[in-house]
Amino acid sequence: MFLYEKNFELQKAKALENLKVALEKDLVDKDIISLLKKINSLENYFTTSSCSGRISVMQMPDFGDKLNAVWLGKWHREVELEEVLEAIGKHSEGMLWFMLHSPILHISAKTLEDAVGLLNLAISCGFKHSNIKSISHKKLVVEIRSTERMDVPLGMNGELWVSEDYLRKVVEIANLQLRRAKEKLRKLENEIERLLKA
Amino acid sequence: MFLYEKNFELQKAKALENLKVALEKDLVDKDIISLLKKINSLENYFTTSSCSGRISVMQMPDFGDKLNAVWLGKWHREVELEEVLEAIGKHSEGMLWFMLHSPILHISAKTLEDAVGLLNLAISCGFKHSNIKSISHKKLVVEIRSTERMDVPLGMNGELWVSEDYLRKVVEIANLQLRRAKEKLRKLENEIERLLKA
Repeated sequence: MFLYEKNFELQKAKALENLKVALEKDLVDKDIISLLKKINSLENYFTTSSCSGRISVMQMPDFGDKLNAVWLGKWHREVELEEVLEAIGKHSEGMLWFMLHSPILHISAKTLEDAVGLLNLAISCGFKHSNIKSISHKKLVVEIRSTERMDVPLGMNGELWVSEDYLRKVVEIANLQLRRAKEKLRKLENEIERLLKA
Repeated sequence: MFLYEKNFELQKAKALENLKVALEKDLVDKDIISLLKKINSLENYFTTSSCSGRISVMQMPDFGDKLNAVWLGKWHREVELEEVLEAIGKHSEGMLWFMLHSPILHISAKTLEDAVGLLNLAISCGFKHSNIKSISHKKLVVEIRSTERMDVPLGMNGELWVSEDYLRKVVEIANLQLRRAKEKLRKLENEIERLLKA
């Protein structure tokens, strides 16, 4: 059997310390901080990483080469067309993408039962792509994520393939999807709060 | 603890029977059949559903209403621009999307160790979004999936927002991504074959 339970307390203390430093350095998405704090208040869980959902414009030097990708614009909130156009203006080479990503949280659980409990809670809040991301002797990680997603190719090597009108529509759809995803985060936070009070 | 191990043999027999019927009805993607057979030859696993990766054109009556979505075109292989244009020609109402989805397999495992073993094998073959999808008393399911994905809005209520030139590029990128994803399937099949011979 797996031994992830063994070092849980030690790892949790370390993770909370890391989170404290990240908060001091202003590295955590504002609209997810209170959710992280609530999850960390639950005895058998701690958060290890998170993103509250984002809209972005990305330049990828070679196809699929995410390691060398450059963010030309990244927002954890709804955006204006003008902001997206400004980011696109910085594009010079490689492939240009507009993207929307669902919120994502990685949470260590103490036992398999704890992991499955959180997984099912997340799914019930609309995070349908939630799963158990990894199990090893060192850790047991639940991934909370939703289905909202857009990956739209916009151009290549400085050339833009789409019109401003098209971008306006894409931004509108992305904002709608992001809003929906953030509502799921609030729903999850309410459910975690109920657990804390119980 | 969870009791998914208890009914494994019975469930496997049932799943193999279902697969047999699906194969007779020609309902299984051709290029994934040999992989499914190899996985099912492993004692402690059986497949429950699969898609070998696909390119599609979809019409969604209301935003996000996937239940009432209509496929205007769906291909488990690389496509020609003409095929995509033909599918787009059928669009009448709601939102029109062009999509590429990674291969996806759901596989029941007998024990947690079996699940984690397969999960790690799949990740090593490039299926980086693989995970343990669910654990309950009834079942323990590994999901094998990759990162390739495109969700491109094309139009709404009969109106097309993009040019044929843009569609040509989108199709090209999607074909490239699909090819890459199918290569991962072959890599996984080779690894499963090695397990069978071991």
